[in-house]
Amino acid sequence: MLATALETRLREVLGNRLSLNRAERDRHSRDEAYMTPVLPDAVAFPETTEEVSAILQLLGEYRVPVVPFGVGTSLEGHVIPVRGGVSLDMSRMDTILDVHVADRDAVVQPGVTRRQLDQHLRDTGLFFPVDPGADATLGGMAATRASGTNAVLYGTMRENVLAMEAVLADGRIIRAGGRARKSSSGYDLRGLLVGSEGTLGVITELTLRLYGRPQATAAGACFFQTLEGAVQAVIETDLMGIPVARIELIDEVQMRGVNLHSALGYPEKPALFLEFHGTDASVAEQAKLFGEIADGCGGTEFQWAAEAEDRNRLWRARHDAFYAGKALRPGAEGYVTDACVPVSWLVECILQTQRDIEANHLLAPLVGHAGDGNFHLTILIDPQDPEELAKARHLAERLADRALAMGGTVTGEHGVGSGKRKHMLAEHGEAWSVMGEIKRTLDPLNILNPGKIVPEPE
Amino acid sequence: MLATALETRLREVLGNRLSLNRAERDRHSRDEAYMTPVLPDAVAFPETTEEVSAILQLLGEYRVPVVPFGVGTSLEGHVIPVRGGVSLDMSRMDTILDVHVADRDAVVQPGVTRRQLDQHLRDTGLFFPVDPGADATLGGMAATRASGTNAVLYGTMRENVLAMEAVLADGRIIRAGGRARKSSSGYDLRGLLVGSEGTLGVITELTLRLYGRPQATAAGACFFQTLEGAVQAVIETDLMGIPVARIELIDEVQMRGVNLHSALGYPEKPALFLEFHGTDASVAEQAKLFGEIADGCGGTEFQWAAEAEDRNRLWRARHDAFYAGKALRPGAEGYVTDACVPVSWLVECILQTQRDIEANHLLAPLVGHAGDGNFHLTILIDPQDPEELAKARHLAERLADRALAMGGTVTGEHGVGSGKRKHMLAEHGEAWSVMGEIKRTLDPLNILNPGKIVPEPE
Repeated sequence: MLATALETRLREVLGNRLSLNRAERDRHSRDEAYMTPVLPDAVAFPETTEEVSAILQLLGEYRVPVVPFGVGTSLEGHVIPVRGGVSLDMSRMDTILDVHVADRDAVVQPGVTRRQLDQHLRDTGLFFPVDPGADATLGGMAATRASGTNAVLYGTMRENVLAMEAVLADGRIIRAGGRARKSSSGYDLRGLLVGSEGTLGVITELTLRLYGRPQATAAGACFFQTLEGAVQAVIETDLMGIPVARIELIDEVQMRGVNLHSALGYPEKPALFLEFHGTDASVAEQAKLFGEIADGCGGTEFQWAAEAEDRNRLWRARHDAFYAGKALRPGAEGYVTDACVPVSWLVECILQTQRDIEANHLLAPLVGHAGDGNFHLTILIDPQDPEELAKARHLAERLADRALAMGGTVTGEHGVGSGKRKHMLAEHGEAWSVMGEIKRTLDPLNILNPGKIVPEPE
Repeated sequence: MLATALETRLREVLGNRLSLNRAERDRHSRDEAYMTPVLPDAVAFPETTEEVSAILQLLGEYRVPVVPFGVGTSLEGHVIPVRGGVSLDMSRMDTILDVHVADRDAVVQPGVTRRQLDQHLRDTGLFFPVDPGADATLGGMAATRASGTNAVLYGTMRENVLAMEAVLADGRIIRAGGRARKSSSGYDLRGLLVGSEGTLGVITELTLRLYGRPQATAAGACFFQTLEGAVQAVIETDLMGIPVARIELIDEVQMRGVNLHSALGYPEKPALFLEFHGTDASVAEQAKLFGEIADGCGGTEFQWAAEAEDRNRLWRARHDAFYAGKALRPGAEGYVTDACVPVSWLVECILQTQRDIEANHLLAPLVGHAGDGNFHLTILIDPQDPEELAKARHLAERLADRALAMGGTVTGEHGVGSGKRKHMLAEHGEAWSVMGEIKRTLDPLNILNPGKIVPEPE
């Protein structure tokens, strides 16, 4: 519970934009991870950077934790206020401040969502490519270093946040990065804040890199006898430098879910869903070259989704993978995890994981951003069965260990949150201590999303 | 001068790989910047990470500065040991440890040079794209966040260093990043170290992203009536999403130098030199689309360099720009600076700069990585004339201020070193203090390249 004196002072800043309402606190107690919710003591709805700064100064004075919140679509418990305190809901800072067409950048507040920006850009000929599936806020996407299906061509939030404004734990407002496309001027604080999950600062403005909408887009699916064949096709496509915009791997279990969910009647084999961006001619050439590669890897003929409508159906099937997976076991909940390995290890990592799933009598459809060596499991569990939950957790932990043993990372794009923190030492070794030292330098009172990412002093 | 006790202990680690030789110290007293050299007290030539760690621990104990050194091709005095101490020459750590073809990455020691890696990769079908012109070490390129002509397509060192091993000031050895193509796991220490110019740690190993060699390459030049036309062509090419691998702007003054130096007989007008990578068909299409754009912007017909030999001649002319510039004023020295602005400001920034050059009766040919909004001046000065040197320095300072006023950065790719440190506060504001806080956390004794990048405590 908030101290009365603190509440009074927060109200001086926020008026009725400080909520103690149970439903509001409840909404801010969880994200989409399968984790125990923790209620914040209050929810604050700042509207300006100066308000964020004032709030952080007050919370520092009272040593009260603060957890930035976008729309709550994170997948590892990032926004769960595990130590209580204030959930800082950034959704009212949702203005698109500027779009510079010639420079291909947009300046946005952190509460702007991906679809809102997409809508806004519709008539400019530009688009923002990072698409984690959910209609997340761009602030949340930056904070978690999100990526998604077309990161293989356009990069992740790491590459696509040009600059930001952030409020530090002590209320200082800084700007990191700038609108120039590149710079060698000083430490990359922008890069340090991207992916810091609200533990180093609160993002209050972002400058994002945009791209010209491709003149032509082609998409389609290709089905393989074996997983090895599918991944081999990915590797050869990559080595040949074919600039695929999306190259998504879907395993045979997930394909069964897709068919159940979307009645698309696809073969229930390891599949690649692809998208090509370019001119009419270049898109056709890319598809042809990929077709030749797939043919040599035991792939079926490339099934084009020629019309925009077919393309949308195809990608809806991919984006609905989570729900499609659940169709395999009605009533089940999905325990989600992700890992990323060097592509040469992708087959081995997936095969070992599939064997692990079977050996534990679990059902866990798999989809992956194969071009990046990144894949997700949706482990389907009975929410009433604590034993299944434990089994899912252990499966995810073994996957994390496996990814590390193969030179990979415990999370390609979901982030650390609460779920992956236990693997940080194994992944980063002494560098994890360094992360902690940086955290303590920038947030000596440990008020910013405490209990996440970094080790804490004894 | 080194304390005798320290020298003895360093010799226990290095034997005769610690040099007090005057010629060796002299070679490590300077880089390619027009700056006063400062002699190091000694030069150390470590051969292993453990030796680097032992050296740093000793130097910390004795509070002696240490400046990592590659081959000395930096352009802002980065490697000048302004506080004396030990120059840590990394050139003996020059082994290419591993090339993973399917994963498109290479693991190298920091003393490997760009050309050495290029040679090594020749038969793999892969290449490393970052090319700052000089045959720098990859460690130096990472430390300075180097880029170059084809950053517009392939990115800079920021995007192309996947992972590194580094030794911190206290001798701890850390690994940052990994071989997975992307990760959301913890703070991006890799990104923090890239561009930190030896002030946060000494890079002892790098994992670099490689690319498939394009099946086809086409290059050529296009000449414009006006600078505005040339830059407009760059902007339209970019907005259309034509994936140019290089799009270099060369002003009319520099073109005069190119003709004098290389006898190429080009028109002495603002020029774009371009290169396209892809398949035969896509390269031809890119060139055709660019030609249409150039035509609408007052460009001449695109002059193809069809044969590899012509292409080499073209790019040699571009890469020799520094020497070509000097041909305009025999006996002169080149004072080099760079800046980077949002591309929409590029014309205005260059025109104001050209007027500034003229008003000050200076001669300063200009070349630029126009696709990134980045350009360089080589200010030609009489080395015997201190007044000219002062004028050049002030011109460079005004360019830095101008770039900032236009939303740009004081250095797109050369880095901060000693030369640009005075602009850090203006560019970064409060964020500059944060850089200093991070520096003091990781290097509390201020032994790593002191006097560079960050503010120092009073």
